[in-house]
Amino acid sequence: MISVIELLGRRLRLGLIGGGGASLIGPVHRIAARLDDGFELVAGVLSSHPERALKEAEALGLSRGYSDVQTMLAAEAERPDGIDAVAIMTPNDSHQAYAEMALDAGLDVICDKPLTNDLASACALVAKARARGLVFCLTHNYSGYPMLREAKSAVAAGELGTLRLVQANYVQGSLGSHVEGNPEAITDRLRWRLDPTRGGLSHVLGDIGTHAHQMLTFVTGRRVEAVLADVGAVIPGRVAHDTASVILRLEGGARGVMFVTKAATGAENALTLEAYGEEGGLAWAQASANELRIMRNARPAELRTRGLPTLHPYSRQAARLPPGHPEAFFEAFANIYRDFASLVAARRAGREPEDYARMAPTAADGAEGLAFIEACLASTASGTWATVPRV
Amino acid sequence: MISVIELLGRRLRLGLIGGGGASLIGPVHRIAARLDDGFELVAGVLSSHPERALKEAEALGLSRGYSDVQTMLAAEAERPDGIDAVAIMTPNDSHQAYAEMALDAGLDVICDKPLTNDLASACALVAKARARGLVFCLTHNYSGYPMLREAKSAVAAGELGTLRLVQANYVQGSLGSHVEGNPEAITDRLRWRLDPTRGGLSHVLGDIGTHAHQMLTFVTGRRVEAVLADVGAVIPGRVAHDTASVILRLEGGARGVMFVTKAATGAENALTLEAYGEEGGLAWAQASANELRIMRNARPAELRTRGLPTLHPYSRQAARLPPGHPEAFFEAFANIYRDFASLVAARRAGREPEDYARMAPTAADGAEGLAFIEACLASTASGTWATVPRV
Amino acid sequence: MISVIELLGRRLRLGLIGGGGASLIGPVHRIAARLDDGFELVAGVLSSHPERALKEAEALGLSRGYSDVQTMLAAEAERPDGIDAVAIMTPNDSHQAYAEMALDAGLDVICDKPLTNDLASACALVAKARARGLVFCLTHNYSGYPMLREAKSAVAAGELGTLRLVQANYVQGSLGSHVEGNPEAITDRLRWRLDPTRGGLSHVLGDIGTHAHQMLTFVTGRRVEAVLADVGAVIPGRVAHDTASVILRLEGGARGVMFVTKAATGAENALTLEAYGEEGGLAWAQASANELRIMRNARPAELRTRGLPTLHPYSRQAARLPPGHPEAFFEAFANIYRDFASLVAARRAGREPEDYARMAPTAADGAEGLAFIEACLASTASGTWATVPRV
Amino acid sequence: MISVIELLGRRLRLGLIGGGGASLIGPVHRIAARLDDGFELVAGVLSSHPERALKEAEALGLSRGYSDVQTMLAAEAERPDGIDAVAIMTPNDSHQAYAEMALDAGLDVICDKPLTNDLASACALVAKARARGLVFCLTHNYSGYPMLREAKSAVAAGELGTLRLVQANYVQGSLGSHVEGNPEAITDRLRWRLDPTRGGLSHVLGDIGTHAHQMLTFVTGRRVEAVLADVGAVIPGRVAHDTASVILRLEGGARGVMFVTKAATGAENALTLEAYGEEGGLAWAQASANELRIMRNARPAELRTRGLPTLHPYSRQAARLPPGHPEAFFEAFANIYRDFASLVAARRAGREPEDYARMAPTAADGAEGLAFIEACLASTASGTWATVPRV
Repeated sequence: MISVIELLGRRLRLGLIGGGGASLIGPVHRIAARLDDGFELVAGVLSSHPERALKEAEALGLSRGYSDVQTMLAAEAERPDGIDAVAIMTPNDSHQAYAEMALDAGLDVICDKPLTNDLASACALVAKARARGLVFCLTHNYSGYPMLREAKSAVAAGELGTLRLVQANYVQGSLGSHVEGNPEAITDRLRWRLDPTRGGLSHVLGDIGTHAHQMLTFVTGRRVEAVLADVGAVIPGRVAHDTASVILRLEGGARGVMFVTKAATGAENALTLEAYGEEGGLAWAQASANELRIMRNARPAELRTRGLPTLHPYSRQAARLPPGHPEAFFEAFANIYRDFASLVAARRAGREPEDYARMAPTAADGAEGLAFIEACLASTASGTWATVPRV
Repeated sequence: MISVIELLGRRLRLGLIGGGGASLIGPVHRIAARLDDGFELVAGVLSSHPERALKEAEALGLSRGYSDVQTMLAAEAERPDGIDAVAIMTPNDSHQAYAEMALDAGLDVICDKPLTNDLASACALVAKARARGLVFCLTHNYSGYPMLREAKSAVAAGELGTLRLVQANYVQGSLGSHVEGNPEAITDRLRWRLDPTRGGLSHVLGDIGTHAHQMLTFVTGRRVEAVLADVGAVIPGRVAHDTASVILRLEGGARGVMFVTKAATGAENALTLEAYGEEGGLAWAQASANELRIMRNARPAELRTRGLPTLHPYSRQAARLPPGHPEAFFEAFANIYRDFASLVAARRAGREPEDYARMAPTAADGAEGLAFIEACLASTASGTWATVPRV
Repeated sequence: MISVIELLGRRLRLGLIGGGGASLIGPVHRIAARLDDGFELVAGVLSSHPERALKEAEALGLSRGYSDVQTMLAAEAERPDGIDAVAIMTPNDSHQAYAEMALDAGLDVICDKPLTNDLASACALVAKARARGLVFCLTHNYSGYPMLREAKSAVAAGELGTLRLVQANYVQGSLGSHVEGNPEAITDRLRWRLDPTRGGLSHVLGDIGTHAHQMLTFVTGRRVEAVLADVGAVIPGRVAHDTASVILRLEGGARGVMFVTKAATGAENALTLEAYGEEGGLAWAQASANELRIMRNARPAELRTRGLPTLHPYSRQAARLPPGHPEAFFEAFANIYRDFASLVAARRAGREPEDYARMAPTAADGAEGLAFIEACLASTASGTWATVPRV
Repeated sequence: MISVIELLGRRLRLGLIGGGGASLIGPVHRIAARLDDGFELVAGVLSSHPERALKEAEALGLSRGYSDVQTMLAAEAERPDGIDAVAIMTPNDSHQAYAEMALDAGLDVICDKPLTNDLASACALVAKARARGLVFCLTHNYSGYPMLREAKSAVAAGELGTLRLVQANYVQGSLGSHVEGNPEAITDRLRWRLDPTRGGLSHVLGDIGTHAHQMLTFVTGRRVEAVLADVGAVIPGRVAHDTASVILRLEGGARGVMFVTKAATGAENALTLEAYGEEGGLAWAQASANELRIMRNARPAELRTRGLPTLHPYSRQAARLPPGHPEAFFEAFANIYRDFASLVAARRAGREPEDYARMAPTAADGAEGLAFIEACLASTASGTWATVPRV
């Protein structure tokens, strides 16, 4: 692997949009961006409140804090050492505007999911990124897990035979009771998320359903073609969706189920995937992220572990430590940033990016996620099958 | 606990119907029936072929082998030491006839699931058992697992608060490829099972779906009211159903998902249950059958283990060994037989059965299972919600 | 596999010695003996108190209860349908006398471990059993677990290469505090066990250390040649030993550690084994008894599961159910009884026993266990290495 | 928590000593140091070969690469923005010299373990750091795992009652065969490690035994007072030690076992800890680093998970993500760097460090490790107990 420094003679300069205050994802982005030393965080707008934005930038030791995105983009464009790219981690309803501004300024973009709050705007963003010839990565961070990259590689290499079944679950408990009715429990983070105009029409699908959907399509290499869904709130009095049960038909005839919920009291972010073909199956769970179980009929299962030299190249490259030294969430997130760094550096150097960087989730994946959400909502409304629109 | 011997001064005498030859379930019944010494196996019709029936009875050391059920029932009725009950473990399409014959002979019945192949005949059987005042147990053996009895008790005691979500999976791999097209792979056992006229309209639902359904309703104490289902075969060329994905609505407003399949190549009988209420959740898996995970929001999970003195009475009584000495499938199956023994012995002694025996699955549970199957098939056919008929 | 009934035309008749009252192991023996239908339990002396012995036999529905062992052996010898064998499950200090009486009466014996309370008497018993040409099995029941039989077979087949390392742990918590000082906590079962004159010089080594030792030598096929040990009580005021830490040298140059304790508060009978050779390693734990992990350097581990058709013959034969349907403690114990039945039936039929029956632990294994205990105590006393006497 | 930037208005400036080339630990240090943004890596001597040192510094994008440590310390001392601290990650035999040079230059030090190769030099280093009043942290990184900090806190809070038993294992397989005899397998990293004059008298004890020892004393708060050990090589032809079996006596009367080996073919860095007191026990394994099992007699075990609000403060502060989002090796290592940063920043600011920083392993812990090694070797040589020298 060629590092960014080797390729460009310097680190990439990243500008942050959002992620200040009590944001959970802000620190994650900053840690992940720095982890492999491909980026330096030099500028940022850490809050939508201009004053707070400046203060927070200072508290983080950012060289150049700005009061708003417009100002940052303009000022950085003037500098010889201006930012190369932006990372967007603001509430969902602002992704599109900020991303468009950055693309218009000629900057590569890495953005939180869901890409936007509706399919049309997602498609517009995909089109703009393509038209500009710029890199646009989406932080579907679970696809950064080495053993999910191994899973994808195993499916692609035909190890499972023709794919027949898939099950993806994402089970959380943070909304297991009516917290939104409790002024002390309802944080700012939660407030915008549960507000459909800001967080999107379906909280559970936007927040974690798109992750499960992307993981599933990433690993299987198959689109979801049709869904039979039941999306809604299981907690009385709740407006936002907290649970989605979805029966899936994938291209090529595979079937499956997805169960995503935030109302599973006591569950702690249990993300799991199983896939079965005619020759074998695989199972992965974030709780034991460093291993992938490969199953075959009437034979012992195989436990592939992160870092083994026998793994497929993309999963080998996604590991930084030998087997038995566990890696986890931050390292997976950092793998998305490493993909992004490779894509950006290669574009700037006029070279091909590292092969593994093709694994990076893109704006197009984001649009697929929105198409999936819209189909699930249509199915729920009609009580029958809905086709997932082609993006 | 009062033993059968203490209550009646002798073991109950059991007559076997089926379970000879290469039957998998035959030895399970015999081991389970004997395990707690409540039964002696004295008579049997081990095959539908009269000669084989006699030979097999002899090979098993049964005192009284018979060539057919009619003959056994008549002969045993004449004896002072005739059988008290029959155990039916024949192909599904014969359950009704044999059960009716036994009930008509005044015998208590324990019968394999599914009870019958359609709801109407199931209801007829329920009605006849009730009319005769006889015991009728169904071998939904998973509900014999002590930690599922603990789960049921925990839900009933309100430990989870109001139930909101449930997920039940039963994932097998024995039909992961088109074995029925391979003369060497297709056994007698498999042939009748995959034949809809003998094994029932939906192989996967009858064979394992009814187990998942009974486990779910047993633990939650809630009926499934409506389903949105996709039932069929994922393997090309297959007639029998191998996979059912079902979205559930339970009485009282809980929602959930069930995924049952026999086409998950390499999966080994993975039966799991999760349930969540507003106060907490629980998770159980047959692969770690001796423990039950109890979850609560923002607090450590609790691992309840079989045999602990702090368990609810019904789960404590279902254990024979102290914690750390694992029990498994046979012991769970034997718990159904122990329930059955207690019910039969109590009826004969004119006493109340042991409290724990109320946990036994009955013919009515079997009818509920058939109602569930019919609703799933109706939903699949219409592509929309189907109501589960009340039994 | 030929069944006992097929070989002899009847079940073997077993006489019980001990196991009544609050005995934990009594019900285990009875369940295990009946499980595969190789034995019928026809006679017994259930207690050392004559009256209680008769009452308990009746409560269990035994045809022929006796007041004492002498009487049972004499009476049964007169009957045409007298017992073929005895099962001894009395306190340790009585094993030798009962076993000798039974052998002198020409009966085959299955006996609880430890064989006796000292090496000399153990050797005497081994010699007598050999001289009489009778079968003598010892209930080192853990070696009945199919996946430990797989482990033994894997080592024997050279799958690990030359053995280099072994670790065996048996960690319990029942004596984690000074229960013997608490009149309410100290049961009859515990009282004789903790009394060195009845339970043996080292409670922890006799009760569970011999299990760990037998498991280790069973699987590796190697004798322990020398030990460096620290055996004693970690709970202040305790006389009986509750903990043994032992460094091992095995024949052929392998090294290892054994840690057995009953003072690990909260631990629930955690029995584990690991063994490593130059080509690979294996790991097994009773808590997941249905699987065996096979490891190799820089390659994925393999999970062998009970019942797979690819297993070695002895482990395949030790399973009654397909993979995914778990078996556990009783079934492993029953495998020892099945071995015993095969050995006894073959001896009586003048035939070779089933091959798998060679796996049965014998009186000689019991003597090896006593030799191990004596070496551990010698090492503890001297504070340096002790050689394990050859038996 | 106050960040370094908030306290000092800038990040701490770190100089690297070692860690270039194929070093495994070099990237770990750099990632860990940067992770929480308390350090910027501004200078370094990446190799003991002057030319390579400069090239490697450039490749890493370090602002100021130097050819040797002397030069770096002199040059940095001249700069207004000179380094505040050094991180030493060179072969063991050079730790002392580099550390002394840095301390003499008034710099705080973070250093790889083992501290040195013998107890005398370790004590000298401890004395010098104390005399200088400088911070000296040792990268016993496992004590950075939040759930081991929870374990320590639980023991300290008396949750287990009086400690009675402990077991610590560190089982690896990288030296499972005679790799040193294979010119292709023997890397530079391995060559100096297996050379006693460079890697220390006992490879296995220095490399992983000191980790297990520090973890055990860190969690229990007890010194190891005496050992009965068997240290050596299990692979024929090997000079370096690959395996150590150690029986332990801890202060206060607790006993235990430690088993550390690098010859367990196929094992992948399996670090585990169990500790038991009269009231309860705990178990932790690196393979499931995000949870800690708390056990109590005859009651359900509790699964504490990283990030729960109910944890003890030191373990809560050591987590960056909510429960269910796993953290792993790098984050634990970064916790040691965060402790170090807090200690250094506080010293420079003339303030008390953050409370959690007291958890950091120090030079004194390193000396304790060397004392442990020397006692283990003495015990092995004499074949009897050895007292661990007081440091």
